[in-house]
Amino acid sequence: MSRRRQSRQIKLNNVAVGGGAPVTVQSMTNTDTRAAAATLKQINELAASGCDIIRCAVPDEAAVSSMKEICAESPIPVIADIHFDYRLALGVISSGAHAIRLNPGNIGGPERVRQVAEAAGESGIPIRVGANAGSISKSLLSELRTDGMNTHDSIVEGLVRSALEQCRLLEDFGFKDIKVALKASEVTATVEACRRFAAETDYPLHLGVTEAGTPARGIVKSSVGIGALLLDGIGDTIRVSLTADPVEEVLCGIRILEACGLREARPEIVSCPTCGRTEIELIALAERVEKIVNTLKASGKILELNKIAVMGCVVNGPGEARDADLGIAGASGDKVAIFKYGKTVGVFPQEEGFERLKAEILSFSH
Amino acid sequence: MSRRRQSRQIKLNNVAVGGGAPVTVQSMTNTDTRAAAATLKQINELAASGCDIIRCAVPDEAAVSSMKEICAESPIPVIADIHFDYRLALGVISSGAHAIRLNPGNIGGPERVRQVAEAAGESGIPIRVGANAGSISKSLLSELRTDGMNTHDSIVEGLVRSALEQCRLLEDFGFKDIKVALKASEVTATVEACRRFAAETDYPLHLGVTEAGTPARGIVKSSVGIGALLLDGIGDTIRVSLTADPVEEVLCGIRILEACGLREARPEIVSCPTCGRTEIELIALAERVEKIVNTLKASGKILELNKIAVMGCVVNGPGEARDADLGIAGASGDKVAIFKYGKTVGVFPQEEGFERLKAEILSFSH
Repeated sequence: MSRRRQSRQIKLNNVAVGGGAPVTVQSMTNTDTRAAAATLKQINELAASGCDIIRCAVPDEAAVSSMKEICAESPIPVIADIHFDYRLALGVISSGAHAIRLNPGNIGGPERVRQVAEAAGESGIPIRVGANAGSISKSLLSELRTDGMNTHDSIVEGLVRSALEQCRLLEDFGFKDIKVALKASEVTATVEACRRFAAETDYPLHLGVTEAGTPARGIVKSSVGIGALLLDGIGDTIRVSLTADPVEEVLCGIRILEACGLREARPEIVSCPTCGRTEIELIALAERVEKIVNTLKASGKILELNKIAVMGCVVNGPGEARDADLGIAGASGDKVAIFKYGKTVGVFPQEEGFERLKAEILSFSH
Repeated sequence: MSRRRQSRQIKLNNVAVGGGAPVTVQSMTNTDTRAAAATLKQINELAASGCDIIRCAVPDEAAVSSMKEICAESPIPVIADIHFDYRLALGVISSGAHAIRLNPGNIGGPERVRQVAEAAGESGIPIRVGANAGSISKSLLSELRTDGMNTHDSIVEGLVRSALEQCRLLEDFGFKDIKVALKASEVTATVEACRRFAAETDYPLHLGVTEAGTPARGIVKSSVGIGALLLDGIGDTIRVSLTADPVEEVLCGIRILEACGLREARPEIVSCPTCGRTEIELIALAERVEKIVNTLKASGKILELNKIAVMGCVVNGPGEARDADLGIAGASGDKVAIFKYGKTVGVFPQEEGFERLKAEILSFSH
């Protein structure tokens, strides 16, 4: 696909973002940050699910205090999410936050921005700035609409201008250890704004579609928006926003990276849709194979397989199975054929075939 | 976003594909096509879910006979899926199929292709040809690999060459009423092949990622691949392939079109992810709102609302709610604020706020 956009690199503790580093998956805790133990428990759960970087809301001084323990003990870098109050930003920098997310435009003037930029600079921690369709200033929006722009275009233009302005406020104090997010709940506005911003700067980009909704809609919106940008080579770290358990955000984020060829799905499991030719229990079969693989991986086993194919019939079955390390495909009637490295192992009744396949999968785990 | 690619238009009965027609959603029945009543029952269910075009596997003469009743009574155009046997193609054309899907390269030579092209031409029905990574000919693949191509590039090149070759076989007999699909289970190969083919011809394109798997992975893969192409202006009809009930394919397809701004999600429901600032029951609230809307729509009601926002807190809540027709956002403690056309209706305890919002939603339905 497209070459990756060359962004400058920032570091969140030991995790690099941008500059050719692997694209990372983020999420956000939904515990009360003041409850350090509960928050750390959730961070550990998210890290075990594959989360690379975590963000915690820091709405008050009690949360700032709690961040000391959280940042010291978290297995992954912790970003403090701050709004409006620069003292909270200064506080979490002292508490050991690995990055902060705040918009210098809403903390009350240049002197406060200077203090935050200097403190972050001295501690060597980056700042994520951003623009969100819901927080574009009313004056900018009405200015753009006066210019005759429609809602969509004014959101795109507003996001790009707001993000550039947030960067400039920090650059004024020599601070460039920045990553940037531009988010709208409209996928098309998000994609356009990120493409435009990416072309104008070399700051690393944090991708996400904001307020994407419940999983039914949010997974599709996030996959389309984040995926289209990643396939263009744009994006250094991603966060899927779902109205759901944050573990779902992490799993979806990982699957987006896998779909974009940016993280290896190992093994990849391909399976047919059903159709009128399907005579085997394809849906159940695919889910059983997926479960075996998930269980092995969750138990820390390594599976030396690149691809497993679960195919309904003989039309595409042998072709796909040819490329897979292991394959199962509907044969005549309700029988199944088992394939290994493109060669037919044999044709078996369905349940026996599944057991053969399972034994093969297990033989590749250690 | 990008302008839509200008493709030639084909017609499947009363449904246009390409040439600026709205992008349609397809699925495939998984009943035995020989059982006409069961197949029609599923087609009606899929049509009620929003499916625009349906495909049925036609593996034998009994299925050809059954297609007479299916095509006559289906509320949406029916595509007959044929492999290898040109007599089945001739048969379903007589049975009233609204289109056929077959690859002229695998039906046994030019004379048979001529007969199928003439019969389709006389009946005025289009042919969908296609290339699938699993069915690229071994000789072409090994030729490409001899040229030093890696697996990924040889799949892309193989898909484009195979698809062009399938078209040429029909063009040789003056038949151009064609739509084309190029599918691989790798998203990146699918996207690259479709982009290349789209640049070389004006045939309408049927998009899909093949063997995408169970919903957990398949929805992400299909959304990324189909979405990236649609956002580029490429694609005239789509089919999400899932190892699942075909209704899931249709719902996912519709959501992809909505995410790409190609179909109006009316009302659009936006909702925050959870975070440490959330003090209200956000996940449950968003799901309850979604359920009210789904229930109204399923009962055939029209909802005169463009957007409903369900927001966790005051950071982005008022901004998003400003753009929404109706909104609910966490206020102080576990209270919620209700918004209507950007103005605050009031702040209420959570359950009372939900009931107020529900009453507002219902007042917009008829």
